[in-house]
Amino acid sequence: MTAPAEPTFDDAFAAAFTTLLRWRRDVRHFRPDPIAPDLLDRLLDAACLAPSVGYSQPWRFVLVESAAAREAVRANFEGANAEALGDYQGERAKLYASLKLAGLRDAPVQLAVFTDAGTQIGHGLGRKTMPETLAYSTVMAIQNFWLAARSANIGVGWVSILDPDALRADLAVDPGWSFTAYLCVGYPQAASDRPELARRGWEAPHGASRELLKR
Amino acid sequence: MTAPAEPTFDDAFAAAFTTLLRWRRDVRHFRPDPIAPDLLDRLLDAACLAPSVGYSQPWRFVLVESAAAREAVRANFEGANAEALGDYQGERAKLYASLKLAGLRDAPVQLAVFTDAGTQIGHGLGRKTMPETLAYSTVMAIQNFWLAARSANIGVGWVSILDPDALRADLAVDPGWSFTAYLCVGYPQAASDRPELARRGWEAPHGASRELLKR
Repeated sequence: MTAPAEPTFDDAFAAAFTTLLRWRRDVRHFRPDPIAPDLLDRLLDAACLAPSVGYSQPWRFVLVESAAAREAVRANFEGANAEALGDYQGERAKLYASLKLAGLRDAPVQLAVFTDAGTQIGHGLGRKTMPETLAYSTVMAIQNFWLAARSANIGVGWVSILDPDALRADLAVDPGWSFTAYLCVGYPQAASDRPELARRGWEAPHGASRELLKR
Repeated sequence: MTAPAEPTFDDAFAAAFTTLLRWRRDVRHFRPDPIAPDLLDRLLDAACLAPSVGYSQPWRFVLVESAAAREAVRANFEGANAEALGDYQGERAKLYASLKLAGLRDAPVQLAVFTDAGTQIGHGLGRKTMPETLAYSTVMAIQNFWLAARSANIGVGWVSILDPDALRADLAVDPGWSFTAYLCVGYPQAASDRPELARRGWEAPHGASRELLKR
């Protein structure tokens, strides 16, 4: 068996990849069109190409499909969101409420993503001083998924306003798994190259290169 | 000002992007060739296109250039690595030692990446129940950086065998920043579509789609 030839990425691909990064959005408004199962498999395969500490591959995906499971997630979100709203005053509170942070109602595909904190895969390599790198590996798989989805013109929204322990219990997953993210997935109602929170005046973009510290 | 037209990503781009994911590697063996400052700026700009919780953009990059700073990082790694080695017995210990986990000696560009835990940017939106999403945002910026680097035929290696508190002190950064990752960056000596830990028999790849749970 011969090894595959090393690919060359030219300037045109690098430019198109930058366009992909620029148009990846946290999508909250979805069309109801379903996503073909083969395509979802392909996106999950892309997720699994992420780096992981000690090659531990700790990402675990749960497809949340049933009405009962989705209702449990929505109730969880509403409780956590009401509590978060209490932290904001006046105009900010109204803006926050109007942002419709969750595509939970409309997204045709919903994935709960966990990190298997007890995995023996990878034999613990590389995470002795920084055990949080296990969850970081799952986060990188999510970013792969997100970008692969956008390359197929599919949108992803990450819902983090959730009680992680309650969600794990509601979905009856392995108690050794920790909750990492809840993803709403579907074809977006509209595309944009600007974050919704920037468009709505919540926050402005900040550069990094200019403030690069040197040591 | 008119909004830019929405890009269309075709099947050829999606296939090339999958190739990019497949050939992104955790690189530990670098050529000494420098990286042009403009190119490094472009990779940092790609990092800043990552999603962040509440648009908080908490990533902070420190370019580690001086001999003193690099020596402090190397000493930190050697201490943490010796301690980690004590956890493995016999052949595994030898393999572990032979993996040369760090490109710390050779990588022409080295970046310490922090998360600004005290940032007011984004007004705390979305992270009340899951404060760890702030560091997750930085991790997604790192994955953007990693993939953009690969698209420019540059390799990245993530070193996690470090004492995070000592590193933060050594580099004299804002005490409100938490340490997220140390990245070695440079042109790789060789490319591969298989993880080094797989090639060396440390761990095998595991699929995800087949074990997808449904709820």
